[in-house]
Amino acid sequence: MDNSYNKLIRPDLLQMLRDNDRQGLTEFCDVLHPGVSASVLDQLEDEQVWEVLDNCDLARRVEIFEFFDLHRQEELVEALDRERLSKLLEEMAPDDRVDLLERMPQERIDALLPLIAQAERNDIRKLLSCEEDTAGAIMTTDYASLPEDITAREAVDRLRQQAPDRETIYYIYILNQARRLDGFISLRDIIMAKPDTTLSDIMKHDVISVYVDDDQEQVAQTLARYDFIAMPVVDHSQRLVGIITHDDVLDVVQEEATEDAYRLGAVQPMEDSYLDTPVGTIGWKRGVWLLFLAVVALVTARVLEHYEKVAEGDQFRFLILFLPLVLASGGNAGSQSATLIIRTLALGELSRTDNVRMALREALIGLMLGGGIAIVAATAAVFWFGLTVTKAIIVSTTVLLVVILGTISGSLLPLLFRRLGMDPALMSNPLIAAIIDVLGVVIYYKVALLALA
Amino acid sequence: MDNSYNKLIRPDLLQMLRDNDRQGLTEFCDVLHPGVSASVLDQLEDEQVWEVLDNCDLARRVEIFEFFDLHRQEELVEALDRERLSKLLEEMAPDDRVDLLERMPQERIDALLPLIAQAERNDIRKLLSCEEDTAGAIMTTDYASLPEDITAREAVDRLRQQAPDRETIYYIYILNQARRLDGFISLRDIIMAKPDTTLSDIMKHDVISVYVDDDQEQVAQTLARYDFIAMPVVDHSQRLVGIITHDDVLDVVQEEATEDAYRLGAVQPMEDSYLDTPVGTIGWKRGVWLLFLAVVALVTARVLEHYEKVAEGDQFRFLILFLPLVLASGGNAGSQSATLIIRTLALGELSRTDNVRMALREALIGLMLGGGIAIVAATAAVFWFGLTVTKAIIVSTTVLLVVILGTISGSLLPLLFRRLGMDPALMSNPLIAAIIDVLGVVIYYKVALLALA
Repeated sequence: MDNSYNKLIRPDLLQMLRDNDRQGLTEFCDVLHPGVSASVLDQLEDEQVWEVLDNCDLARRVEIFEFFDLHRQEELVEALDRERLSKLLEEMAPDDRVDLLERMPQERIDALLPLIAQAERNDIRKLLSCEEDTAGAIMTTDYASLPEDITAREAVDRLRQQAPDRETIYYIYILNQARRLDGFISLRDIIMAKPDTTLSDIMKHDVISVYVDDDQEQVAQTLARYDFIAMPVVDHSQRLVGIITHDDVLDVVQEEATEDAYRLGAVQPMEDSYLDTPVGTIGWKRGVWLLFLAVVALVTARVLEHYEKVAEGDQFRFLILFLPLVLASGGNAGSQSATLIIRTLALGELSRTDNVRMALREALIGLMLGGGIAIVAATAAVFWFGLTVTKAIIVSTTVLLVVILGTISGSLLPLLFRRLGMDPALMSNPLIAAIIDVLGVVIYYKVALLALA
Repeated sequence: MDNSYNKLIRPDLLQMLRDNDRQGLTEFCDVLHPGVSASVLDQLEDEQVWEVLDNCDLARRVEIFEFFDLHRQEELVEALDRERLSKLLEEMAPDDRVDLLERMPQERIDALLPLIAQAERNDIRKLLSCEEDTAGAIMTTDYASLPEDITAREAVDRLRQQAPDRETIYYIYILNQARRLDGFISLRDIIMAKPDTTLSDIMKHDVISVYVDDDQEQVAQTLARYDFIAMPVVDHSQRLVGIITHDDVLDVVQEEATEDAYRLGAVQPMEDSYLDTPVGTIGWKRGVWLLFLAVVALVTARVLEHYEKVAEGDQFRFLILFLPLVLASGGNAGSQSATLIIRTLALGELSRTDNVRMALREALIGLMLGGGIAIVAATAAVFWFGLTVTKAIIVSTTVLLVVILGTISGSLLPLLFRRLGMDPALMSNPLIAAIIDVLGVVIYYKVALLALA
């Protein structure tokens, strides 16, 4: 849909720019959904974008601006002078503003801050101090709150005043004197209540909140579990410090899924999207892993060299043929296990008590899978490659052992990483495969030497 | 948080059940967030769950019930007689209801339908007929709509009537006589408007909608892009047929990320979560892939057998040592490329016009990465393994070629799959590795024969 919109609107927009058709440009900004305007503008040069956005009021300009991805926002603000940029930042949502500031050079921020109103400045300092990937880093401070002793009718009147500056007015938080969270109420409940009802009679006391230093992934799991539009963030004295909205959680879920996929695929996570990241950076993010894996493969070469000397003679020559099969089977089974476990952990479905159950399951599955492939391998070895039964048994025994080893290490290593407080997905599938390669060679030759020597 | 809640509340709940403390049980259902009640109840036996839920009214019972995951819902309804189950189904949200019905045996559905009110029955038939993984399959028909010629004040009054049965009243759709979508308005805009304003003056005409047969992944991308709480679903005559809400999109995003991760890790996607899936099913979902990959590895063995005969003699013996390095490097580089491309496609960031740019980038990155590892491999071959320079060049040339082959096939195959209308993630990383294994052996020996024969 984006694409068809783009094709339809872009030529018109460029024509309006050439004609300096101010009215047309204002309409472009005001009539379309800001997200649509942003995706059309995204195809234009930086100066053209500002030329268009100059034709609408600040509030709308910011609405559209916030729909550009961070990478483009960063590029766009480089063209702005201090005055215009400080106005833009003042109007931006606190969470989006801080995300952008975090990507700007410190000198620029220092030059900007004096131009920004005191209240916003404090807000920026507070949010900038939150650690990355925590609830604090994705929350916004623009939440709606009401006292508990007013009626539903009064509540609607007050929300009318608050609405323009609030990220959402659909969830409203009830605070006591100490700004502690006493309860919450949805706008739906307020609308459904008789206008004379006091909020304290309809508010909910069982508020589910997260701490400001909770990990964002955990926050996302909680919001997803309860289907919230927003969720309150409190400090350790239970004071409300912000809210996290559903759209930011959706971004977190995408971001975390991308990071996990990258890690499993042996790519270091990157800040920007794949297409926005320079080739050199991608090369580096991948090269580190590839190089490390190459070193492990050289260890495998060394181990092979050793056993090639020990297992001299023609009766061992067949071993080499099935080496790719043996190593791939173990690595693939390990990748499967690691993928399943890491995804289950990411969805928050695995409690710590399930660990033992899981290891047993994986060992059992390893036995089934290893047994299956062992039979296929043995059959092929005898009937397709014409090997003796002894040799076929060497291959299939190794396959069985290596697959079991793969499932166990593929499932236990991510759990071990979590236990050590590290990201379970740090364990990449190629790394598991590389480890299996080393151990697989040892097992293979040991079995062969035992059977043939 | 869930866990600590559970530990605190569960013993109390069990005590209340033993004491048959009806008042306490009613309170348990009514005071806690329904999602919390569900997660505490999830630890109990099926009969105990119903014993507790019998103490609250139908609306609340359904609210709590809808928070169980589908797998548990399916188990729970087995214990219900037709009358109770039909009441439950009537009250459920249309989308959740259909998800559950889809998992029930046809005889049971046939026995139930006559007990369900006509309106709900039609709704069920309509939703059941939507194809899986489309917008229609995740939409709900309980949307709020208003005529455009009423005032904001009247709108609030009408929403008060509609609210109890609507999935959300925060987005309201404006329909014309033919039920075509004319515009939309948020409750926030209604609240912010002066009470006498007519809706037609404040409604937005640029409605972003999806078609009922659009793929759910595309729907999720659209909602995520525009930060909507809900999005309208229309048929091909632009008539509104339902809405999709943010929480269902979050589920879709998680589900699709899981499916993609599984496919990349060579596991066939499964319906239930990992822990809810029987060991036999998991074995099957993995075994199919492992077996197929084993067959490809046997082809590699066959190819190796051929070249081992052609490349007879001691000067070729070193080749085998670096075989794991050569094959792993190509496979790993391919996995990286496939992971990056598939994730970029999943996020909707890659338009069709970027394909060429992307292939060039990947080829360039392959050259960089392959070159880097080639140098490391050559250095190690000479100084660590004491090989001649010629032999080192054979290894490093092969590494370079295989890595480039890996990046190109890893990036092009998912794009090819998409072009053919298939899921790009059908291409698993182990499959790429297996293909590289076959071709890698050929390249390796060809290079060696060229240099040494």
